[in-house]
Amino acid sequence: MRDFPPEEKILRDEVISVLKGIFELYGFSPLETPVVERWEVLSAKYSGGEEILKETFKLTDQGGRQLGLRYDLTVPLARFVGMNPTIKRPFKRYQIGTVYRDGPIKKGRTREFYQCDADIVGSSSPLADAECVQLALDVFEKLGIDVEVKINNRKVLYELAQAAEIPEELTEAAILSLDKLEKIGPDGVLREMIERGIAHVSAERFLSGAQDREALKKSEGYRELEPVLSALQDPRVVWTPSLARGLSYYTGTIYEVYAKNSSVTGSLAAGGRYDNMIGQFLGGSEKIPAVGISFGLEPILEVLKEKHPNRIMRKTVTQVYVIPFKTLLAEGRAICQQLRRVGIKTDMDFSAKGISDGLKYANAYEIPFVVIVGPDEVAAGKVKLRDMRSGEEKLLTVDEVPHQIKPQEGRSP
Amino acid sequence: MRDFPPEEKILRDEVISVLKGIFELYGFSPLETPVVERWEVLSAKYSGGEEILKETFKLTDQGGRQLGLRYDLTVPLARFVGMNPTIKRPFKRYQIGTVYRDGPIKKGRTREFYQCDADIVGSSSPLADAECVQLALDVFEKLGIDVEVKINNRKVLYELAQAAEIPEELTEAAILSLDKLEKIGPDGVLREMIERGIAHVSAERFLSGAQDREALKKSEGYRELEPVLSALQDPRVVWTPSLARGLSYYTGTIYEVYAKNSSVTGSLAAGGRYDNMIGQFLGGSEKIPAVGISFGLEPILEVLKEKHPNRIMRKTVTQVYVIPFKTLLAEGRAICQQLRRVGIKTDMDFSAKGISDGLKYANAYEIPFVVIVGPDEVAAGKVKLRDMRSGEEKLLTVDEVPHQIKPQEGRSP
Repeated sequence: MRDFPPEEKILRDEVISVLKGIFELYGFSPLETPVVERWEVLSAKYSGGEEILKETFKLTDQGGRQLGLRYDLTVPLARFVGMNPTIKRPFKRYQIGTVYRDGPIKKGRTREFYQCDADIVGSSSPLADAECVQLALDVFEKLGIDVEVKINNRKVLYELAQAAEIPEELTEAAILSLDKLEKIGPDGVLREMIERGIAHVSAERFLSGAQDREALKKSEGYRELEPVLSALQDPRVVWTPSLARGLSYYTGTIYEVYAKNSSVTGSLAAGGRYDNMIGQFLGGSEKIPAVGISFGLEPILEVLKEKHPNRIMRKTVTQVYVIPFKTLLAEGRAICQQLRRVGIKTDMDFSAKGISDGLKYANAYEIPFVVIVGPDEVAAGKVKLRDMRSGEEKLLTVDEVPHQIKPQEGRSP
Repeated sequence: MRDFPPEEKILRDEVISVLKGIFELYGFSPLETPVVERWEVLSAKYSGGEEILKETFKLTDQGGRQLGLRYDLTVPLARFVGMNPTIKRPFKRYQIGTVYRDGPIKKGRTREFYQCDADIVGSSSPLADAECVQLALDVFEKLGIDVEVKINNRKVLYELAQAAEIPEELTEAAILSLDKLEKIGPDGVLREMIERGIAHVSAERFLSGAQDREALKKSEGYRELEPVLSALQDPRVVWTPSLARGLSYYTGTIYEVYAKNSSVTGSLAAGGRYDNMIGQFLGGSEKIPAVGISFGLEPILEVLKEKHPNRIMRKTVTQVYVIPFKTLLAEGRAICQQLRRVGIKTDMDFSAKGISDGLKYANAYEIPFVVIVGPDEVAAGKVKLRDMRSGEEKLLTVDEVPHQIKPQEGRSP
């Protein structure tokens, strides 16, 4: 777990604000569930699974209740839907929050991290799937990141495995291998499938089948995918038959979003349809179809920092720093309040240690503008505005100052 | 711990957004520290104290480290300042986040709750104290809540206790009793002080001294308070000599903000100067002066709900719900996207179950407007806009729709 000092947190908040804005534009409303959940919820069958449970922080309250820190936002969503059966469906919610995994401490992996999820619970329409992808396209357009969306339908792969006569118990292993096609190449996939116990002839049929797009278009899985693709009609959305996206969870459409021309190779967002999970989690017989998308704050920030290496991190939100002469603190304070009233983020030097000390402070925080309040300026009914980047100084009335303040530099999106 | 469904969370987010906006206007930058801290930090001397530690959630990671959930945002701030000695002071940060207390479960008290803190670390100027109070006045003005700020300086009370010859070991008990003046009256305060072992004559001198404002104005404590009051010059800020605000933590100015004409009697925000805590927490010899203010999200929401009993809670962020005829889903989707592009929060009925089902959905979520996309409308190049409150319907082009959408009703601040 780590701190995010202002220079990191300002940028994080800007990205979160873009996500929140577009989630709401698409009619998703915010939900907040607590960080601490009952252990029985986190460990329920059909929740995150054994692997994830091993990495879940466990705690006990003074009443002896078994609790844990949430490891994702989907299990709490399922619990919420179960506890609120009267909520009208489709229920569209988003949640942006921290989740926790007690994994080994290593570089680039934190034990507290953000998930930013939007889900539609209770619609089986392919247009709901398309909404999630469209939303992602809008988010990355707003963030100025060029992306490609890989999309597929899980059933394409199940059908293919069946046609290749891969035994049911080896189907998921075969799909996992195929998912690595772009990473390890066809020979690598073939070798891995055979190592996993799949017959040579089946492995070859499965692999070549996955590359025969025309034949795959006749599959049931593609027939489900087609209305999603035709609703989107976007060249950034590319059908990728080898895309498998994890294993037990998804039942239909799946998608992953990647940055183009970036050294960040992991996905920036991903999701899909999971029509069985919520119903099974709730233990009822009712099927509750759902589809969603989850954005990874960390990889998005990595891409933004790579794109704008020098400009994107700000050490403070402050736009103007008011430095009054020792005897003019009250005048300085009045100017400060006047600028704040018109929306300029303003801070002030209370120390009365002199202009040069004040300028050092503004430099340390890279505050773009300084307003100097000295006796000559006050006598003339003006202030001196200094652009800290260019060093240029202007004598202005306080009312004229806001027009000189450019929109914040380094603002990411 | 509890869930906040959209109708609660939308309002919470609006209040948080007002706080964030004004914190930044005053030049406070955001800091984020993790929810989980090392136990040794949470339990350090000069941190929250014994009482709070009993209510702190404890956990252990797989590496055997002792950890706990933070119970406030001030201890993590002190740790951050200690770990970042090169950060330029004054360091102005705000943090809005959840904290945890493992107290007994009872009504009106949750074990996960928000703190919204702004602190100035490294300035001993009384203008820094005034900034915190001014900021609070701006927050409540923006939220439309009339408030009174009670303000005092701790030293006023210490001096008074000394003058009344109250023994040092009983001084804090005397101050605590006096703090209840408005609640239990002068007789009650006197009785309690005597019960606590303070001599009758001392108790009487202390009590009458606290009510003699003119005499108190000659105290050292008031001399410290005076520049804060004169910087603020605001009739809402009232010097209240009996105000004590807890005990061991604060060293100078203290203040509490109360709603006027409200049934909510607890403070909505409070804070003060604590010049010893951070330095002592860090165990060094350096004194690190600090002053801050903390807003309570729960009491603020209570006041807002009381002021706007019918209007303030919204079940969804959605402003317009598009209901297309079964055969016009693609047209509906295009209209939906067109409205989103101009910033209207829009959702759409994918179910193709018919207009009446769609209207029921819009009603259930209290969505203010519906756009009906039927064959006649499409043929005329128009849509039907229905105001769900008045029932009024208009035939319009899609471009005309946004002008009809009023700013969201029920928006709190």
